[in-house]
Amino acid sequence: MSAASPITASIVLDADGIRHGHLRLPHSHDGSAWGHVMIPITVARNGDGPTALLTGGSHGDEYEGPLALMDLANTLRPEAMAGRVIILPAMNHPAFAAARRTSPIDGGNLNRVFPGAPDGTVTEKIAHYVASEILPRADIVLDIHSGGKTLDFIPFAAIHETGDPSQTEAARAAMEAFGAPHAMIMRELDPAGMFDTVAEQAGKVFVTTELGGGGTATAASVGIARRGVRNLLIHAGIVDGSIEPAPSRLLSIDHEGCFHLSPGAGILEPCRDLGVMVQEGELIARIWPADRTGVAPAEIAALSSGLLAGRHFPGLIAMGDCLAVIARPVG
Amino acid sequence: MSAASPITASIVLDADGIRHGHLRLPHSHDGSAWGHVMIPITVARNGDGPTALLTGGSHGDEYEGPLALMDLANTLRPEAMAGRVIILPAMNHPAFAAARRTSPIDGGNLNRVFPGAPDGTVTEKIAHYVASEILPRADIVLDIHSGGKTLDFIPFAAIHETGDPSQTEAARAAMEAFGAPHAMIMRELDPAGMFDTVAEQAGKVFVTTELGGGGTATAASVGIARRGVRNLLIHAGIVDGSIEPAPSRLLSIDHEGCFHLSPGAGILEPCRDLGVMVQEGELIARIWPADRTGVAPAEIAALSSGLLAGRHFPGLIAMGDCLAVIARPVG
Amino acid sequence: MSAASPITASIVLDADGIRHGHLRLPHSHDGSAWGHVMIPITVARNGDGPTALLTGGSHGDEYEGPLALMDLANTLRPEAMAGRVIILPAMNHPAFAAARRTSPIDGGNLNRVFPGAPDGTVTEKIAHYVASEILPRADIVLDIHSGGKTLDFIPFAAIHETGDPSQTEAARAAMEAFGAPHAMIMRELDPAGMFDTVAEQAGKVFVTTELGGGGTATAASVGIARRGVRNLLIHAGIVDGSIEPAPSRLLSIDHEGCFHLSPGAGILEPCRDLGVMVQEGELIARIWPADRTGVAPAEIAALSSGLLAGRHFPGLIAMGDCLAVIARPVG
Amino acid sequence: MSAASPITASIVLDADGIRHGHLRLPHSHDGSAWGHVMIPITVARNGDGPTALLTGGSHGDEYEGPLALMDLANTLRPEAMAGRVIILPAMNHPAFAAARRTSPIDGGNLNRVFPGAPDGTVTEKIAHYVASEILPRADIVLDIHSGGKTLDFIPFAAIHETGDPSQTEAARAAMEAFGAPHAMIMRELDPAGMFDTVAEQAGKVFVTTELGGGGTATAASVGIARRGVRNLLIHAGIVDGSIEPAPSRLLSIDHEGCFHLSPGAGILEPCRDLGVMVQEGELIARIWPADRTGVAPAEIAALSSGLLAGRHFPGLIAMGDCLAVIARPVG
Amino acid sequence: MSAASPITASIVLDADGIRHGHLRLPHSHDGSAWGHVMIPITVARNGDGPTALLTGGSHGDEYEGPLALMDLANTLRPEAMAGRVIILPAMNHPAFAAARRTSPIDGGNLNRVFPGAPDGTVTEKIAHYVASEILPRADIVLDIHSGGKTLDFIPFAAIHETGDPSQTEAARAAMEAFGAPHAMIMRELDPAGMFDTVAEQAGKVFVTTELGGGGTATAASVGIARRGVRNLLIHAGIVDGSIEPAPSRLLSIDHEGCFHLSPGAGILEPCRDLGVMVQEGELIARIWPADRTGVAPAEIAALSSGLLAGRHFPGLIAMGDCLAVIARPVG
Amino acid sequence: MSAASPITASIVLDADGIRHGHLRLPHSHDGSAWGHVMIPITVARNGDGPTALLTGGSHGDEYEGPLALMDLANTLRPEAMAGRVIILPAMNHPAFAAARRTSPIDGGNLNRVFPGAPDGTVTEKIAHYVASEILPRADIVLDIHSGGKTLDFIPFAAIHETGDPSQTEAARAAMEAFGAPHAMIMRELDPAGMFDTVAEQAGKVFVTTELGGGGTATAASVGIARRGVRNLLIHAGIVDGSIEPAPSRLLSIDHEGCFHLSPGAGILEPCRDLGVMVQEGELIARIWPADRTGVAPAEIAALSSGLLAGRHFPGLIAMGDCLAVIARPVG
Repeated sequence: MSAASPITASIVLDADGIRHGHLRLPHSHDGSAWGHVMIPITVARNGDGPTALLTGGSHGDEYEGPLALMDLANTLRPEAMAGRVIILPAMNHPAFAAARRTSPIDGGNLNRVFPGAPDGTVTEKIAHYVASEILPRADIVLDIHSGGKTLDFIPFAAIHETGDPSQTEAARAAMEAFGAPHAMIMRELDPAGMFDTVAEQAGKVFVTTELGGGGTATAASVGIARRGVRNLLIHAGIVDGSIEPAPSRLLSIDHEGCFHLSPGAGILEPCRDLGVMVQEGELIARIWPADRTGVAPAEIAALSSGLLAGRHFPGLIAMGDCLAVIARPVG
Repeated sequence: MSAASPITASIVLDADGIRHGHLRLPHSHDGSAWGHVMIPITVARNGDGPTALLTGGSHGDEYEGPLALMDLANTLRPEAMAGRVIILPAMNHPAFAAARRTSPIDGGNLNRVFPGAPDGTVTEKIAHYVASEILPRADIVLDIHSGGKTLDFIPFAAIHETGDPSQTEAARAAMEAFGAPHAMIMRELDPAGMFDTVAEQAGKVFVTTELGGGGTATAASVGIARRGVRNLLIHAGIVDGSIEPAPSRLLSIDHEGCFHLSPGAGILEPCRDLGVMVQEGELIARIWPADRTGVAPAEIAALSSGLLAGRHFPGLIAMGDCLAVIARPVG
Repeated sequence: MSAASPITASIVLDADGIRHGHLRLPHSHDGSAWGHVMIPITVARNGDGPTALLTGGSHGDEYEGPLALMDLANTLRPEAMAGRVIILPAMNHPAFAAARRTSPIDGGNLNRVFPGAPDGTVTEKIAHYVASEILPRADIVLDIHSGGKTLDFIPFAAIHETGDPSQTEAARAAMEAFGAPHAMIMRELDPAGMFDTVAEQAGKVFVTTELGGGGTATAASVGIARRGVRNLLIHAGIVDGSIEPAPSRLLSIDHEGCFHLSPGAGILEPCRDLGVMVQEGELIARIWPADRTGVAPAEIAALSSGLLAGRHFPGLIAMGDCLAVIARPVG
Repeated sequence: MSAASPITASIVLDADGIRHGHLRLPHSHDGSAWGHVMIPITVARNGDGPTALLTGGSHGDEYEGPLALMDLANTLRPEAMAGRVIILPAMNHPAFAAARRTSPIDGGNLNRVFPGAPDGTVTEKIAHYVASEILPRADIVLDIHSGGKTLDFIPFAAIHETGDPSQTEAARAAMEAFGAPHAMIMRELDPAGMFDTVAEQAGKVFVTTELGGGGTATAASVGIARRGVRNLLIHAGIVDGSIEPAPSRLLSIDHEGCFHLSPGAGILEPCRDLGVMVQEGELIARIWPADRTGVAPAEIAALSSGLLAGRHFPGLIAMGDCLAVIARPVG
Repeated sequence: MSAASPITASIVLDADGIRHGHLRLPHSHDGSAWGHVMIPITVARNGDGPTALLTGGSHGDEYEGPLALMDLANTLRPEAMAGRVIILPAMNHPAFAAARRTSPIDGGNLNRVFPGAPDGTVTEKIAHYVASEILPRADIVLDIHSGGKTLDFIPFAAIHETGDPSQTEAARAAMEAFGAPHAMIMRELDPAGMFDTVAEQAGKVFVTTELGGGGTATAASVGIARRGVRNLLIHAGIVDGSIEPAPSRLLSIDHEGCFHLSPGAGILEPCRDLGVMVQEGELIARIWPADRTGVAPAEIAALSSGLLAGRHFPGLIAMGDCLAVIARPVG
Repeated sequence: MSAASPITASIVLDADGIRHGHLRLPHSHDGSAWGHVMIPITVARNGDGPTALLTGGSHGDEYEGPLALMDLANTLRPEAMAGRVIILPAMNHPAFAAARRTSPIDGGNLNRVFPGAPDGTVTEKIAHYVASEILPRADIVLDIHSGGKTLDFIPFAAIHETGDPSQTEAARAAMEAFGAPHAMIMRELDPAGMFDTVAEQAGKVFVTTELGGGGTATAASVGIARRGVRNLLIHAGIVDGSIEPAPSRLLSIDHEGCFHLSPGAGILEPCRDLGVMVQEGELIARIWPADRTGVAPAEIAALSSGLLAGRHFPGLIAMGDCLAVIARPVG
């Protein structure tokens, strides 16, 4: 990682005031021999104080993050701040502009390639710059996700249990300050390549979210994001004001029985909706063949009891797709 | 329309009992020189009596119709019927199998090419067969729609005001029997090529619906469809039982001010959600540029007062897309 | 058909000698604003006498016709002829150059759009020119087909029974002169748009073939085509020499039970090979699911007794594809 | 043509003042169920007087027209006008937005489908609206073309000789007023479907241009367009001012020997450049095989003497592409 | 290779009995954020004894392996076995489902990326799991190949000469037990990345095959595969019964003169068919230009004497494609 | 780099005489299981003496190099030489055959992946073979570039200042011998992966060029290339004759202010053309919105004074594309 990133920022990152610009990533391609990928960035700073890094658009088909962060970039007043806010509302901008989870340039899933590489793919170059140039400047990181076009979730903020109890405790406090309707303790089954992992290993206070899905946003889900961002900045001591409290229900996704893979392809009929409590063995979905009538559907039963917290969104489903996620209520 | 359709049904349409089969449309293409488009069909009949034609999948990314009708095909018992039910759960099957609004074969939007042509495109051949071979057998027609991947609606059943008051009255009674949460009187701005128009001109009692959208279905929206189908068949006297009543709120979409086109491209931020009453002039959405921060969004105000009944679903929007539909409460 | 074709020939069609050139079809497209589709043509003539029209490449993935006709164009000597031979080895040249059944320009299947139109699609313009400018010059027509990439056939020449017994008899004599291993009397189920139909309605002696398939050719199948073409020209009195006789087995495809459609999608296991006699009810193929082991395959039984004359070629099959063709031995 | 167009204008076309808006064409597609094609339009009017219709972007990869007309729309002051100017800078907007000659929606070449159809393809609907709603309002029409991505031309304005001498004379005067470096009398080989033909048949004074090509524009070529547009409006008496004169060289493209088709595919080496006088038989280009060295190139000789007025632009060329156009100096 | 594979098996691999399931490979993509590639697997075991690993579908367009192995998975009875059989009928399942040689996900050719990587592409993850989790359990490996869509072969089983004579001898005995019509000793010119190499280096008895091609299978070729698989399992002492003997002709592909590359692009005319003995210098094929008549074809002569054992399958050929393979008879 | 390249040359590289052949790169893909990428090469040699390596087609949409080098390969006479010329007119042949900057096989930009890898992508294998097998044989290297489809340049030859003054001096002498209208001293901002860097680090005399652009060539630009190549070979003492002198204007691109990135997307209006001297702050271009009229364009001012040496070519431009390059006159 000693090689330098080819990315340059069009604005300074360490000065007082508020600046809007781009991270410029040279990209020579058939449509532009000397072109650039341009990733929007806003930095607002007022003297010393903690730095919050706020990111959205890690996956390009998730909208609560970009909407709340663009609004924040337009409304932040440095004079009412103490410290710094770095905003990347559409981190994987090529994916975001194409309304796709992954980059149309290289197929890269930004949240699987951290810490990236300065001489890798476009997506790996973005990860490398964020990990090596932006992340070290931050004390607290909020990475806003939603389910994207193929998943839908009840709105929750989430943290991981890291090995360091004080780090976990700080993250938990930040998650509670965010104030989403649900709060989730997650045990990541495959943490390799995630931004979360890199940020936590660097000792940052890291909070993530899932605030909806389906490749859309609603007034309600954007409202949760906007309020949560403001609460978090107040909690971090960067922005003045009082936290708008919201009761969160504590949940956990921490065992194999939380995840339900589709046993085949077909039309997905949800038999229970998001936010409902289900019992182990209860029918939660049916899968119908798409090419004929008069055949019985496959029936999907809950593998564990809990709250139906996530589900496959599109009307058709393939074998191996995640059909449902059941979360265990905690405490 | 004197030319014969190349389509043949693999089952008889006029005999007693229940049969599941396909409409077979010869389709010679690169992937199969002597291939066929295969459209699932179920016919259940018990002696004389009225015929109901139930259709879904006119657009291939709408799921409440296919799910309710596949379930009906699996549970109908002819011995408990009087008359006939013809079920086409995925009328534009090539579009349905591809999870697209239009046919991947010819780009055809089935609900814009009626009455079709026997020597036209694949989509036109489907329309022609339905219009000339299936529709004449029907007394009452229910065509189940939803918003598809790009629109989302409050759930409603709907009819048009035709020139014949008794036909309109029969349709209104059927719509009320269906029992969706909302009932809509629609004035179609551009009725050319629609199945609705062809069926109404043939004197049929015709009911359509919009039961959700986004290219998905929920347990709730499928429940509305399933209950509505059963209510309608009882109302038509084909199936025994008592109608499960549901209060419907009567609405109307009947003037230019109902429709809101997007004035530009960008990220869509909904400021009001579906089902909310809005006042003319009220801010209902903002559109943000997707390529930079620090720029004010475009603001979209309601053109009329009423219930927010429909909206653009994807997170990105293009100029000219239908951003919102406001319905006028009636009575 | 009174409008003039936009196509012009780069060679004269009615003069003595042999000329190689192209039919030039103006085609304005993104890759060439003032471009042309160029269809190879050879005309060889020596004084008065009958005209034979020899065509291949009506479907672009069939190779026995193009190979035998390119060889003929290179070896015909006008001084050894009486009359004229018009050779179009790759009639749908855009499809041929792309190795596809249909045209990559407009998706057109040339053998479904006759008699074409001078102001239609590119494929329709080709059909119109052949039907209105080339066909009227011919007395006898040989249109060489094979199965293409998705079908495979035992090698046969074929004719239709037209309403005119003397025309049918002349076609039968020409088919027998061709001398393929099998000879077929076909009843076309859907003759609309075929070159065969237009040529027969114009009173021409018309012979077609199926000489193999799979999107390839073999030394053996090209040999059948080459010998057949020479035999036919000798039979027509255009070329000197003696016919190389070959015993043909007479077959007929004339009822619904000849055709076997696949009842579903999966991996096709042929249980009988081309050229084998099968009995009604005999297992001829199995279809396995492509996504799992441990499930029994669908079994396909022969619908009639006869010779296995055609079959689906690719390893995967879709619902509605023609899986097998059984021909009835005649006499 | 009695059916109504589905297109509506967002601005009034017949009132005084200047208005910028769009022609809204309903387009239901996979990306937007209730979407619209939006074609920019500006109308400026001051009282009675003649109407000039100025169009660009008939082909979507030609830029002098759109650039000169967008500038005009921004600088026209109605108070300095007498009459009306209707500006359509990007007539085939879907093609223009995609930087393609033809529409990405339906492959339509707008200048081959006039007079269009109200229930046809998107491109045909545009043609129909322009022909039936806009064209009747005009007295004089200027349709600005360039060579697009695949052709390059010396800059010229052009007219056709119509049957009506006074119409031809008026067009010639307008062409001369435009003041391009060259002026061309064209005999269209295949005028079917062209805007030119429809406008001339409607009795309009019609001038067209070719002002460059290659899918780009230069300061020089845009300057010619801008000056020509202003000159034409002054000539028509709509705008005040004095014509900026420019000497035009009169040329004619009126026989087969003007056009040179490529005899094969390969790498195009131009041996003479645009604007040079060449003699019949002179070497003007060579075509090299793209897959090997050590083989002699094909040599292309001029079919007639004259000015090299147009050429194939891309480095690779296909058989049948227009390689060069030689114009005959007149007078 | 110390990193763990992300793949998990849905069945246990080491228990008695027979189980059908999948290897589940997490794959986050635009169509399913939390999706999985699902690779079918069957394991049958009865007590101690040798383990045979039987694989097909390494290339997704080869069908004898998948068909024989799916049949075996359905008919194996553990109680008649001693030892274990592990069946992977479609190893590169994404390629197999798409009927392509390589993976549609990453373009990977599974038989060129061994031993793979746990954090590489999807194809590399499959290779890594097979090499590190499945292969170590095996004593004998049969990897069934055919020519796929672009090559066709006479049916043969094959082995490589490894450095260890006893390993080679054991492989040769297994090849002879398989009983294909031909047996081949191959010297791999470029063994890097092949499954063969990894298995042989691990000391396994390794047999591979080429049993046909063209992207199809026949009753005859599937019969060879089915008989060969059964023979091999009997030979290995895992399944009871007696080997069905079949005389094999021994061949060798071991020098540069076996391979014939196409010197150019065009239409391929085979002048000799598979299975024929040819002499060095004999004409085996001609290549015709695809765009014109009247030009002599290129002629391809045999570079060595022997049996025509393989050939290019599609009707069109490109420069550098393998046109023919001639094998040297041994002994 | 100890691993061997899979590429083999079809001709010997070190013998006297002239030979035309191909570099054969094995490429197993869906269209040809045992196919090859075939890269044309010519080697001419006469006894001892220096070796010149002449390359073109590093980017597949640049034509001056391929045209001049194919001509040279056809006209070089070894008997009039002393030493050796190695010609690779289309180094990235897959890109060249597709008329794209990058390879259609792997998206690779050949001039960004040096020194390549023998087991990497197809593009990396080409780079590795050139760097490890061809480059070591050379004393002087000329790599001919142009702007390609998306950039256009004034014609210039160019060198870099390397750390070794004598190497720089030799390169400068070679550049001056070439005799392009302009001569450029370049400071590469991001030299990683370039052929230039690898060649210079190997101590070669290295000259590159930019001779035009737009994805085309003219008689003038090909003439510059042809004369330059001949001049360079005479200068190197390999070919007899006298250098055809041409006055070159010396320029430098060596600071940030030379490059102008587009601040947004839209239609590019050049306000100054190539070859013009501009002053810092002068308006050089405007960018218009592509979707509406009546909006002011963005204005682009020169960041430095100098000669307009390069510009974006296509009519549409995206944010971050290189809009213009201004070179500083030297001396």
